[in-house]
Amino acid sequence: MTDQQQLPPDVIAQLKALDPEIGPQLAQATWALLTPFHEKAGCTAPKIDRDLAYGNDPRHRLDIHTAGDQDQDRQGGRPVLVFVHGGGFVRGDKHTPGSPQYDLVGAWAVRHGYVGVTMTYRLAPQHMWPSGAEDVTRAVGWLKTHIAAYGGDPDKIVLVGNSAGAVHVASFVAGQGGADPTTVKAAAMLSGIYVIRTPEPGTPEHVYYGPNPGPQTSPIPRLLDSPIPLLFSVAERDPFNFQREAARLVSAWQHQHGTVPDLVWVEGHNHMSTIASLTIDEPALGTALARFVDRHTTTEGAA
Amino acid sequence: MTDQQQLPPDVIAQLKALDPEIGPQLAQATWALLTPFHEKAGCTAPKIDRDLAYGNDPRHRLDIHTAGDQDQDRQGGRPVLVFVHGGGFVRGDKHTPGSPQYDLVGAWAVRHGYVGVTMTYRLAPQHMWPSGAEDVTRAVGWLKTHIAAYGGDPDKIVLVGNSAGAVHVASFVAGQGGADPTTVKAAAMLSGIYVIRTPEPGTPEHVYYGPNPGPQTSPIPRLLDSPIPLLFSVAERDPFNFQREAARLVSAWQHQHGTVPDLVWVEGHNHMSTIASLTIDEPALGTALARFVDRHTTTEGAA
Repeated sequence: MTDQQQLPPDVIAQLKALDPEIGPQLAQATWALLTPFHEKAGCTAPKIDRDLAYGNDPRHRLDIHTAGDQDQDRQGGRPVLVFVHGGGFVRGDKHTPGSPQYDLVGAWAVRHGYVGVTMTYRLAPQHMWPSGAEDVTRAVGWLKTHIAAYGGDPDKIVLVGNSAGAVHVASFVAGQGGADPTTVKAAAMLSGIYVIRTPEPGTPEHVYYGPNPGPQTSPIPRLLDSPIPLLFSVAERDPFNFQREAARLVSAWQHQHGTVPDLVWVEGHNHMSTIASLTIDEPALGTALARFVDRHTTTEGAA
Repeated sequence: MTDQQQLPPDVIAQLKALDPEIGPQLAQATWALLTPFHEKAGCTAPKIDRDLAYGNDPRHRLDIHTAGDQDQDRQGGRPVLVFVHGGGFVRGDKHTPGSPQYDLVGAWAVRHGYVGVTMTYRLAPQHMWPSGAEDVTRAVGWLKTHIAAYGGDPDKIVLVGNSAGAVHVASFVAGQGGADPTTVKAAAMLSGIYVIRTPEPGTPEHVYYGPNPGPQTSPIPRLLDSPIPLLFSVAERDPFNFQREAARLVSAWQHQHGTVPDLVWVEGHNHMSTIASLTIDEPALGTALARFVDRHTTTEGAA
């Protein structure tokens, strides 16, 4: 047994029994199971500054989550955890009123001593590749100037992307859309896709990349030469495509570096519940993610 | 930050700076760094029953680690964590007086509410393949009869093998030497080898398997069809061979099952320090290992 906050075994069993295919059914069933735990744990940080504009598009918006303690916040120097949500490149938002999506990530960040940032970005089909990497670049640039006022250290930014958000983070790390990955300290990609193949019509990739994405759209191989530390995760109940991507990533990484990458296998969770496990089921992902953030934002820890 | 016990960043940095090649130098440097933390945390369980004979060979011995609370121990029903040490098939022991090797594993097990068992086994070259799997089988048989007297549930045995011990556990799970893996509830393999190839003279594999090990000596492919849940780990600073094994395992598992296996990437640690991370650096391995044990020994959690 561990003293950390964990989901009860019967809830994990119910999660594991869900059909892993991504869609409204999985989303509804997953959040119905988990929202009560978020509400109990508290999924909002003490202070949230909403809808700050990091660019001119209506989707160029981010929320900043802090401890709300003016003295502490003024002290500064905190790591800045920037969350990039998923939604198949065509939907999703940083915040859905009345739900823990994704204020819970900001609350988790604040609990661990970070400043939390939840950002959104332009969507396909209006905005196609590499708009995601461009928007992450734009948001990071804005944070460099403004995050100190919220207690964050502009030199300790860590990106965390989930699903399509993980693809945008991977795209940023690979330097697509003019991105400079050395402007952040580290990056985590949860249930992402790292090699872009010719997509079937109707798939999210077809909408974002168009029918014939060139090799320059794939985060791999440049992702393998990342100048910053990376963490990846795959959920026990992620669908086949994401499992295959994770296995191929391990293989390509080992081929390139002789080592296995930092890949977290998120026990008991699915494509939707991975990010929802933060705070309410810490051993699933939160423990490893916090250690990753701490390691790469603490000066002592630089090895 | 996390509230769990962790090693200070400067100690992790020192660990990461060590040459990862396995040998007396790595062992000495690693234990010199970590033993003070074990001594501070306490690396002995309240009660240790030593050198119980599970067979006729002088190496057929195990130690049982318990809370030493007669009422609690008599209650019974606890998971039983059985640790199989490493040592290149030719050396190593369950207990080295004056060192935390490997009473620390027993103490960790007791802290988490389990009964801890540390076992040793016959060594090569006197005893070659499949003597390791035979001895694990023998020890499990002995525990089935005797562990209830120590508060353990004979139907909740979980094996944890490290290095050569992981190979013996893999061999047991693959049914070698007459083993029946369904006699245990789950098995964890830390920094193991899963495909046995023609070994170079002078290597540990050459001593244990002989110069021409047949395909029947390889845990894979049968390991992939395990009837019990498995956890694997690889250390960030494991040497090349172990990294390659881990990557190949992921690839073979995904090919067979369509999913990635439960592989823990042990952040900051090396081949020797992975097992030493228990208790003193819980997020590295202990958190995931305890969750694995709990999941597969709790009736509610069976999904």
